[in-house]
Amino acid sequence: MSILTSPILEINLTNLLDNYNQLKQISRHAVAAAVVKDDAYGLHADVVVKKLYEEGGCRHFFVAHGLEGNRIRPLVPDAQIYVLQGIGEDSLEYFQNSRLIPVISSLSALAFWKAHKIEGIRPVINIETGLNRLGFREEDLKQLSEDDKNEFSLVMSHLACGDAKEHFMNQHQLDNFHFLKNKYFSRLPASLSASDGTFLGEDYQMDLVRLGAAMYGINTAPYRENQMKNVVCIKAPVLQIANLPKGDFVGYSATYRANDDRKIAIVSIGYGDGIPRSLSNVGKVFFKNDGKLSEARILGRLSMDNIICDVTEVPGLQPGDLADIVSDYYTLDDMGRDAGTISYEILSRVGKNTRYIRRYIG
Amino acid sequence: MSILTSPILEINLTNLLDNYNQLKQISRHAVAAAVVKDDAYGLHADVVVKKLYEEGGCRHFFVAHGLEGNRIRPLVPDAQIYVLQGIGEDSLEYFQNSRLIPVISSLSALAFWKAHKIEGIRPVINIETGLNRLGFREEDLKQLSEDDKNEFSLVMSHLACGDAKEHFMNQHQLDNFHFLKNKYFSRLPASLSASDGTFLGEDYQMDLVRLGAAMYGINTAPYRENQMKNVVCIKAPVLQIANLPKGDFVGYSATYRANDDRKIAIVSIGYGDGIPRSLSNVGKVFFKNDGKLSEARILGRLSMDNIICDVTEVPGLQPGDLADIVSDYYTLDDMGRDAGTISYEILSRVGKNTRYIRRYIG
Repeated sequence: MSILTSPILEINLTNLLDNYNQLKQISRHAVAAAVVKDDAYGLHADVVVKKLYEEGGCRHFFVAHGLEGNRIRPLVPDAQIYVLQGIGEDSLEYFQNSRLIPVISSLSALAFWKAHKIEGIRPVINIETGLNRLGFREEDLKQLSEDDKNEFSLVMSHLACGDAKEHFMNQHQLDNFHFLKNKYFSRLPASLSASDGTFLGEDYQMDLVRLGAAMYGINTAPYRENQMKNVVCIKAPVLQIANLPKGDFVGYSATYRANDDRKIAIVSIGYGDGIPRSLSNVGKVFFKNDGKLSEARILGRLSMDNIICDVTEVPGLQPGDLADIVSDYYTLDDMGRDAGTISYEILSRVGKNTRYIRRYIG
Repeated sequence: MSILTSPILEINLTNLLDNYNQLKQISRHAVAAAVVKDDAYGLHADVVVKKLYEEGGCRHFFVAHGLEGNRIRPLVPDAQIYVLQGIGEDSLEYFQNSRLIPVISSLSALAFWKAHKIEGIRPVINIETGLNRLGFREEDLKQLSEDDKNEFSLVMSHLACGDAKEHFMNQHQLDNFHFLKNKYFSRLPASLSASDGTFLGEDYQMDLVRLGAAMYGINTAPYRENQMKNVVCIKAPVLQIANLPKGDFVGYSATYRANDDRKIAIVSIGYGDGIPRSLSNVGKVFFKNDGKLSEARILGRLSMDNIICDVTEVPGLQPGDLADIVSDYYTLDDMGRDAGTISYEILSRVGKNTRYIRRYIG
């Protein structure tokens, strides 16, 4: 009998690259930049960046923080690295050493840039068009001098509802963007869209698209079936199978009670591995035995290291068998829906855990 | 004007050590073992273990996985390291190299151990008393030979409701534990309690307590005020302050709409830094100006890198000012409550993020 104890995280870099290439094809008139912030959404920026640079020909990368840009610079010596959160005293050195391109979103950020300019670097200006997050409002744009405007190499904004094709906000933001761009930066190349906007068509793609979530396999166009390949699979071994007698409770705070005799499996993965605790009593895991797929409902609260699930109806299960936690047929998007959140959050959590047996495919 | 862009994570090791010492005092007749699984709940096991070993005199450590035990072994050459998830083919080498002590929770795990015994190591037996997670059920215990029983050095179990002082499960599990221990392992030392059980008194402390959450500052006795010191503080800089006109939407999917003109701040931290996305539209951040504390409600959805909050009533705020995200007065427990989860889950997520400016105190 095989006994395993560690959860397994499989990251399919071949699929990730295929997704990037597919997105590049969809937005063929635009530069296809890769968003690798948050350690490439937890999948490890070094591995992802290397793949995209060497095999995808990607030469434009977006990160959130200077520190993240500094980490990937050695891997992509001649690429453009843009930093969405901008430049500050705490990151100035990273910008200087790694020749990072700041995204400037406010007058105070611009003032800082002007006081700390890096020779040969021309920042991006981020304008606000409806998300009400970072970005110059028109009242700020009016205060820019001609010299200020000439500082920039690209004008960008960001969609609030790009994943909802028919949402009125899309057209609203597109109109706002054109209005502000034409008025203040008519000669600059433009970027409005992340993955979701890329699927809204050429109008939204403009000169540069910022490809993140979809590249990692997330469905950013949920109004139709996912056209991206799945990148992340998670498996975890069954440590124990036990009888759960009628009337017994399961897990912390005794939130589940058995109405009749059940059989349970204790699976070696928990919220300490990034699986959302909100799956308690509502999530499920899967088992494949002899080609047959069985669903096992999560009972009680997830704990840090374990999930308890109902395997009464799962045939032939043995300790050491692997449960599918995330798979091609139960993706991060599915788990996000069951957990009351979005796949982005789960993806960003899972990959940062160091106790997975981590396997890269491709 | 100071401009900062990175969030800051402060880990107070002095308070952590004080908590350990206080818990040791409370359970003075028991061995005070430290639970440092999940990379010390995300705070980095190497730093935490070194502190506890060198300054707290701690010589007993619990981890979840063999791989975690193997990582800390060089720091604590003569300590006992127990592995809660047990031993398997995928971790055998770690047990051999680092002389780890497996916790054995099932007959199949025992069979594996007997086939791969490590000279001089005597495992722990974990018995099930009401949590219905890992552990020998009585039907399994009946199958043990005398030789099997003599394999073990410690008998343990785990409470389901130790954080609820009056919960009937506590006495129920205590009775079950004594019954099974006396019947099968009368001569072995015993361990029933983690932090929460430690506060239930000497009956629950037995020979060894497994101190985790409380040591990290979590209130594991929420029926009274927290007696532990706070260990984790998180701050994040304001990148921008902007007007939010009446009728405007905020954030992804436009889930918040302003009823009147407001002022908002965009704070440089998000779910990519481990802050729960479930705080969208319900959480809050705090600002201290001139000694005055102001609360700023989170508006719209948290994004990966940013929180947008209402600062209409916050006096004198400037870009670059730091928001208190987690603090002595708004702890992980408070955030857990607002986010619909427990502080454990947040703690475990936050510390694994590599883009914090990370400061250890003490």
